Amino acid sequence: MKLTILGCYAATPRTITNPTAQVLEIKNHLFLIDCGEGTQVQLRKQKIKFSKINHIFISHLHGDHFFGLVGLISTFMLLNRESDLHVYGPKGIKEIILLQLRYGNSFTGYNLYFHELTTKDPSVLFEDEKVVVSSFPLKHRVYTNGFLFQEKNKERKLNIEQLEAYSIDKLYYQKVKYGGDITLEDGSVIPNEALSFDPEVARSYAFCSDTSYDESIIPYIKGATAIYHESTFLEKEMHLAERTFHSTAKQAATIAKLAEVKALILGHFSTRYEKIEWFEEEAKTVFEPVYLADDGTVFEISNEKITVLK
Amino acid sequence: MKLTILGCYAATPRTITNPTAQVLEIKNHLFLIDCGEGTQVQLRKQKIKFSKINHIFISHLHGDHFFGLVGLISTFMLLNRESDLHVYGPKGIKEIILLQLRYGNSFTGYNLYFHELTTKDPSVLFEDEKVVVSSFPLKHRVYTNGFLFQEKNKERKLNIEQLEAYSIDKLYYQKVKYGGDITLEDGSVIPNEALSFDPEVARSYAFCSDTSYDESIIPYIKGATAIYHESTFLEKEMHLAERTFHSTAKQAATIAKLAEVKALILGHFSTRYEKIEWFEEEAKTVFEPVYLADDGTVFEISNEKITVLK
Repeated sequence: MKLTILGCYAATPRTITNPTAQVLEIKNHLFLIDCGEGTQVQLRKQKIKFSKINHIFISHLHGDHFFGLVGLISTFMLLNRESDLHVYGPKGIKEIILLQLRYGNSFTGYNLYFHELTTKDPSVLFEDEKVVVSSFPLKHRVYTNGFLFQEKNKERKLNIEQLEAYSIDKLYYQKVKYGGDITLEDGSVIPNEALSFDPEVARSYAFCSDTSYDESIIPYIKGATAIYHESTFLEKEMHLAERTFHSTAKQAATIAKLAEVKALILGHFSTRYEKIEWFEEEAKTVFEPVYLADDGTVFEISNEKITVLK
Repeated sequence: MKLTILGCYAATPRTITNPTAQVLEIKNHLFLIDCGEGTQVQLRKQKIKFSKINHIFISHLHGDHFFGLVGLISTFMLLNRESDLHVYGPKGIKEIILLQLRYGNSFTGYNLYFHELTTKDPSVLFEDEKVVVSSFPLKHRVYTNGFLFQEKNKERKLNIEQLEAYSIDKLYYQKVKYGGDITLEDGSVIPNEALSFDPEVARSYAFCSDTSYDESIIPYIKGATAIYHESTFLEKEMHLAERTFHSTAKQAATIAKLAEVKALILGHFSTRYEKIEWFEEEAKTVFEPVYLADDGTVFEISNEKITVLK
C-alpha cells in the first residue's frame, strides 16, 4: 500500500506548496483522493500514470480540494482516454463539471460516472474482491466525507509441508485457503488450522480532511493501519481551528490515540507556520508514531511500519 | 506598456509549460488576459501584486483559458481583497464561477462584477481617460473574443519656449494641451501648432487567441504597436490547424503583415514541437519583427521597439 502526497497545504496554491491531493496505490488500484488546483501537474511531477486512475474521491466542495478536477477530466479527454472514470463526491460535483464541459462544447470520449453523496451515514462507495472503499462523515463548514480504504482479509496461507504429509490433492488447496477442513479417504477430518496459517492482517488507510475535532469518527477508523488526519493549526491557534472547523496537531493525535490506529500522518497545514516540524512535535506529546506529509512525500504502509520512500 | 507572459502553451498544463494567461501593464492598470489553471501560482512566481488586478478578460470558455479563474477569485477572497473585481468573458462565465462558490458556501467580501459577452461585433469593454479596451470576434470552435488595449492619444506637448515668448499665462496651458489656439490681448490668434508639439503616438496591443486564420480581424488590429497572435501549429500541420480552428506561425505572420502592425508576438504553441524557435523561423519568412512568447517572458512595448526584459 503506497501513499503519494501530491499536495497537503491548506487554502491557496503557492509557488512551493500545493492544495490537497493524494494517490493511494492499493491492490492494483490507483485511487486519487481530492484534487486541488494543479493536481495534474503534480501527478506528472510524481510520474503517476494518468490512465491508471479510474476512481477519484472528493471529500468536499471547497476549492482547495476540487478545483483541479475539471482540468484533469479535460486532460484525460485530450489524452484520448478510453477507460471509465468514476468520481465520488458531494452532490453538486456533477453539475459543476458538466456545466464547464458544456460551455466549452467538450464531451469526454470515455464514460464519466458521478457518484454523488448526500448521506451522513457511512457508506460503501466501491468494492471488489480485494478492496473496499467507504465514506464516513466529517464535521466541517460544508458537507464533507472522510474515506476509508480497506484491503479485504486475505485467503489463509497454505501449509504446504502438512498438505503434502497428508497427501492432499492440489484440487483441495482452494478449499483450504478459504478455511475449509479436509476429509481424508479413511473418513478422518483434518481441521483447517492444521493445514494453513492465518492470513496477514488486512491493511487499511483512512483519509480525514477537513474536519474539526470529532470523536464520532473513531468507530469508522478504529485500528486502521494508518490515518491521514488534518492538522491545519497548532494548539495556540485553537480559536482559529474552532472557528473554521479545522483541527490542531494535538487533536489529530488524540483521535489517532483513541482510535488505536497504528500510525498517524499529519497534513493540511496552514501556510502561516514557518516549520511543519512543529506539528510533529505537538502531536508526539499525545501519540506515536507520527509522520509529516509534504508535497512529493511517498509512504509505504505495511502492518509493521510506515516507510518514507522519498 | 509591459506584457508579462504567465503561460502560452496550448491544451494541458504540464510540469514546465503553462496554459494561457498574461498580464498587460498599461497606464497604471494591470489587466489579466485569460486565466488557465495555475495562473495564480504563475502570478506569484512573477511577483505580480494580486491586489492591483482589477480587470480580467477571458477570451473563451475552453479550459486552458479559464480553469484558473475560480481559484484566483477564491484566493482574492482568502487574502481579504476589498477592491472591486471586473470579469469580462463569454456568457456562462458568471454561472460557472458562482455555482462553485455557492457549493463551497463561499461569498466574496469584495464586489465581483461579471460583464458577459454575446455580441459578435467589436465593442468597448472598459474605458477611462487614458485607456480603452475593446473586444473583437475571433473564429474558433466556441464563441471567442480577441481584445484590443489602446492608450488614448495623449495631450499635445507644450512648447514652453514659445509659450513664454508670447507671455501666455499658465492658465491657458491646459487649453493648448487639448489643441486650442490662443487669442492674445491685441486680438491676434496664435495657432496651436506654434505653441505645442504633436503627442507621442498612442500605443496599442491586441490579443488574438484562439483563432483560425481570419482576415476579417484586420480592421480591428490595424497598425497596432504589437499583436499577440496564436500559432498553435507549423505549416506542415496545417490540416490540424484547420480542423481545430487554430493558426500556423505563417498565418499569424500574414495577419501581422496585412494589418501593418509594428511587431508580432507568437504564442499558444502546441507541445508537440521540440523547439519553439521553429515558429519564429516560419513566421519570419513573411513578417518581421517576430518575438516568441514563453512562460515568464516580459516584453516592454514602445513605439520604437519591443524589448525583452527577461
